[in-house]
Amino acid sequence: MRRVRSGVETRERRGRLRPLLAAARSASSDETPTLHAPRHLIRLHDLTDSELEEVLELSTRRKLRPGVNELEGRSVGMLFFRGSLRTRASLECAVNGLGAHAVNLTAMSDFWELEERDGSVMDGRSPEHIKDAAAVLSQYVDALAIRPSATGRSWDVDRRDAGISSWARHASVPVLNMESTLWHPMQALADLVTLREHLGTLPGKELAITWVRSPQPASASVVHSLLHAALRFGMKVRLAHPAGFELDEGVLAEAEKLAQKSGGSLEAVSSLEEGVRGAAIVYARSWQSIESYGNPTLAASQRSRATDWMLTESLLGETDEGKVMHAMPVRRNVEITDEVLDGPRSLLVEQAGNRLPSQKALLVHLLRHA
Amino acid sequence: MRRVRSGVETRERRGRLRPLLAAARSASSDETPTLHAPRHLIRLHDLTDSELEEVLELSTRRKLRPGVNELEGRSVGMLFFRGSLRTRASLECAVNGLGAHAVNLTAMSDFWELEERDGSVMDGRSPEHIKDAAAVLSQYVDALAIRPSATGRSWDVDRRDAGISSWARHASVPVLNMESTLWHPMQALADLVTLREHLGTLPGKELAITWVRSPQPASASVVHSLLHAALRFGMKVRLAHPAGFELDEGVLAEAEKLAQKSGGSLEAVSSLEEGVRGAAIVYARSWQSIESYGNPTLAASQRSRATDWMLTESLLGETDEGKVMHAMPVRRNVEITDEVLDGPRSLLVEQAGNRLPSQKALLVHLLRHA
Amino acid sequence: MRRVRSGVETRERRGRLRPLLAAARSASSDETPTLHAPRHLIRLHDLTDSELEEVLELSTRRKLRPGVNELEGRSVGMLFFRGSLRTRASLECAVNGLGAHAVNLTAMSDFWELEERDGSVMDGRSPEHIKDAAAVLSQYVDALAIRPSATGRSWDVDRRDAGISSWARHASVPVLNMESTLWHPMQALADLVTLREHLGTLPGKELAITWVRSPQPASASVVHSLLHAALRFGMKVRLAHPAGFELDEGVLAEAEKLAQKSGGSLEAVSSLEEGVRGAAIVYARSWQSIESYGNPTLAASQRSRATDWMLTESLLGETDEGKVMHAMPVRRNVEITDEVLDGPRSLLVEQAGNRLPSQKALLVHLLRHA
Repeated sequence: MRRVRSGVETRERRGRLRPLLAAARSASSDETPTLHAPRHLIRLHDLTDSELEEVLELSTRRKLRPGVNELEGRSVGMLFFRGSLRTRASLECAVNGLGAHAVNLTAMSDFWELEERDGSVMDGRSPEHIKDAAAVLSQYVDALAIRPSATGRSWDVDRRDAGISSWARHASVPVLNMESTLWHPMQALADLVTLREHLGTLPGKELAITWVRSPQPASASVVHSLLHAALRFGMKVRLAHPAGFELDEGVLAEAEKLAQKSGGSLEAVSSLEEGVRGAAIVYARSWQSIESYGNPTLAASQRSRATDWMLTESLLGETDEGKVMHAMPVRRNVEITDEVLDGPRSLLVEQAGNRLPSQKALLVHLLRHA
Repeated sequence: MRRVRSGVETRERRGRLRPLLAAARSASSDETPTLHAPRHLIRLHDLTDSELEEVLELSTRRKLRPGVNELEGRSVGMLFFRGSLRTRASLECAVNGLGAHAVNLTAMSDFWELEERDGSVMDGRSPEHIKDAAAVLSQYVDALAIRPSATGRSWDVDRRDAGISSWARHASVPVLNMESTLWHPMQALADLVTLREHLGTLPGKELAITWVRSPQPASASVVHSLLHAALRFGMKVRLAHPAGFELDEGVLAEAEKLAQKSGGSLEAVSSLEEGVRGAAIVYARSWQSIESYGNPTLAASQRSRATDWMLTESLLGETDEGKVMHAMPVRRNVEITDEVLDGPRSLLVEQAGNRLPSQKALLVHLLRHA
Repeated sequence: MRRVRSGVETRERRGRLRPLLAAARSASSDETPTLHAPRHLIRLHDLTDSELEEVLELSTRRKLRPGVNELEGRSVGMLFFRGSLRTRASLECAVNGLGAHAVNLTAMSDFWELEERDGSVMDGRSPEHIKDAAAVLSQYVDALAIRPSATGRSWDVDRRDAGISSWARHASVPVLNMESTLWHPMQALADLVTLREHLGTLPGKELAITWVRSPQPASASVVHSLLHAALRFGMKVRLAHPAGFELDEGVLAEAEKLAQKSGGSLEAVSSLEEGVRGAAIVYARSWQSIESYGNPTLAASQRSRATDWMLTESLLGETDEGKVMHAMPVRRNVEITDEVLDGPRSLLVEQAGNRLPSQKALLVHLLRHA
């Protein structure tokens, strides 16, 4: 069940929101503003094509002329159940830069484990249910940005993204996904901005998404969100990875549909050389294997067999003057060589920089209409 | 000894404070503003009846029409020696929402253990004395909100509330108690706002405060502050708990006096059914037993004998259409069933929501006159 | 290599900075603002004599009449790789008090270890290089304040200050040192403000810098920065410590040169009594020994032989009505007695208080011209 803010509590907020609401909703009644379900951003698909276009254009305009305190007096709660550098810093700066306030809450150091399962008898470690934490925090802030944790043990369990879904189900303010097991929509937004800055229009342009080696696998969420975003915009995507690193079947099936609809294409290859050949952009990520998910010994052995999957300058000679992207953190001389990272091909710093204006655009879009 | 800010240091602040001070003090000399002892809020009794009434009315008005940046340029240091979700988030939002700044400091992750004992030879773990930390931080911020830790070993020691008292003794700015062993005044403030919203006037209304089971006991501070607040307002309080969970004698003795003065009443019963019968509000809390304080094995055994102390819908049929309150975090289906928590009896989310406007009112009250 | 913000990214910031830049630079081209290398503050020597004088005067003026939001819309990232109380609280308050935003990032709880060595093959623990973290964060904030960690194992390694140097080398915004192995420039700034408030002009005034005992040694950075600052201003410095606690030779050699240039003097003595005799100010610090650096057993034994190195009221009778300073945290009745700390000699709280206006002055100086 969705909790609705009590009428009395709501009045404090409504006073503040009224001018914004007036602009956004023509026929809304003053008595029932909370009946509108909050707009969440769990994945990029939660934005329609025209909304996505609006956010992307706003990102670019915002780089040319930053807005001033458009969200003054608003606040965003940021809850981290895993570590973060870029996301934490860029989102907090985006929030502050719009005149709003960021409230940081780090699980483990600041508070406690939360229960996710509905109906559970809570006599174990967790003293609080997400349901209650979400309902309470929704009364303090205007949006909740969440970086949930995952079990790391079972792909079938983790791919359900129960953590972020629970927050979305129980919060009465917009929930923003700061990277779950399946999706990383804010990274995909910055990626789209970066791709458009370098390629102009996207339809028909060649994007290589390639696995690279690393002693420590990263989440596949970045790749999932990018894959769908690129195909939605009609790009020709080549997906390169060693055997055993196939992406989630559900994600791939949806990707195929997006390609058919947009006129884009998706091709999977098992060679790094073949993957990058002719690409305009090579996007690297050392995603974890579903085959060895939850089995660190098997996973380490699997990765150790793929030591040649690294982006080097000579390899990238095969591209069409290809640029390199990576969501970072990047392991130098393991995933990508210093030569590439410090040379003219690298878009990494610019790409990370695009988190700031694109997240500002997203916040303005979501909260202006909230 | 109380340190007084040096004359030079004070001038920076005085310039900023003068307009506020002018309104608050008619006959104060510009030369001696720091001779006024700071107003602390260690317990709700630190507010006189008329002050408490003013804060409660301000809370309600604030929900109808939020103020604008009334504390602009002020700052509140928030020091956590234990975890927090609601208090941290709601107080930070209250501070920000008034145009002031919250500075968060989490002991253990951000800094170090502090020595509390006067005169000690500090050759042990703690590199710094509360006396010095309080004097220094008082120069940076306009108020210090503290959530102290406790030994958890001896009730006789912990009930002295030495941590929060030390901060109050050594700080030259107002100290706000964010829950000590004995008191949780900000929770009590939100509780009073919630009680008045649902009951109208409080004198003569029936409040059941009942122990409920939990694998992990919670602090009794919430119950102490509520008990005194309710009796101060002349409520009829029934206190229900199993044998062995008697409240602190000093707290009870003071409660009796408050009841006599206000015309309220206090009755203790040892049955949950009897406790809730006819109540307008049932307030649940799984407070720790003084008998087994500091003895986890005994405490666990003691709690395990009280498995039937849980709020259920059928039990609450005995009330006078009673509503349920709880300071949270709440263990679902252990302390209170899902049916109750997700049904119309529950005031929990609204009660937690009231932390925001009541803390704003409190901050304005304390810092406007600081 | 120094990364330069991309032209597009820069535009967002440039729009905001233009009025400030216009005042600061007469002949600068709008097209190339980032060609100016950022002004870092790794040590106090990074400020010229006239700049230092300007900052000190601004600190004093600021105490008399605080400025209003001079850095509105700017932001400062604060990265802690070690604990902090005074520095964290005072810098965050300074940033907020100028209308700017502080973004706090605590390594270990918020993010991960960073690699420092150039060219390393990053297949170990650290998933990210300082080079990349610095380049990325430079795009989100207007300055980066860093408290790096040290190995604690080898003085020869730690004295290179590789951590803070890496940040300075790779950031494209000003880097502020919040205490490295060698330097603590913000503490020295507050120390200079305090010294001038109590001594008027500094040339020829007697300063005793003395080692004191403690079970846990502190960084020598405070002493290095103070020593150079005092000699730069022509003070007569007596340095007192037991045998085995000699300061770094490079730091001392530079100190001699500063004394020659300014007309100040530096004398080392091995007796506490001799050290404090006739001093106007006694500055105490329990710095770690280079001899036993990285050898805790030897270090403990060395410190245990110096139990009489404590500041007491009777010892300080030997001074010229000497005042006592200490950068804190201070171990009471181990480094300095309660009697001294709570009596009229102590400038500690005032000295710590001076962190706030002097850091505000520094931020305005560095970022107004950034």
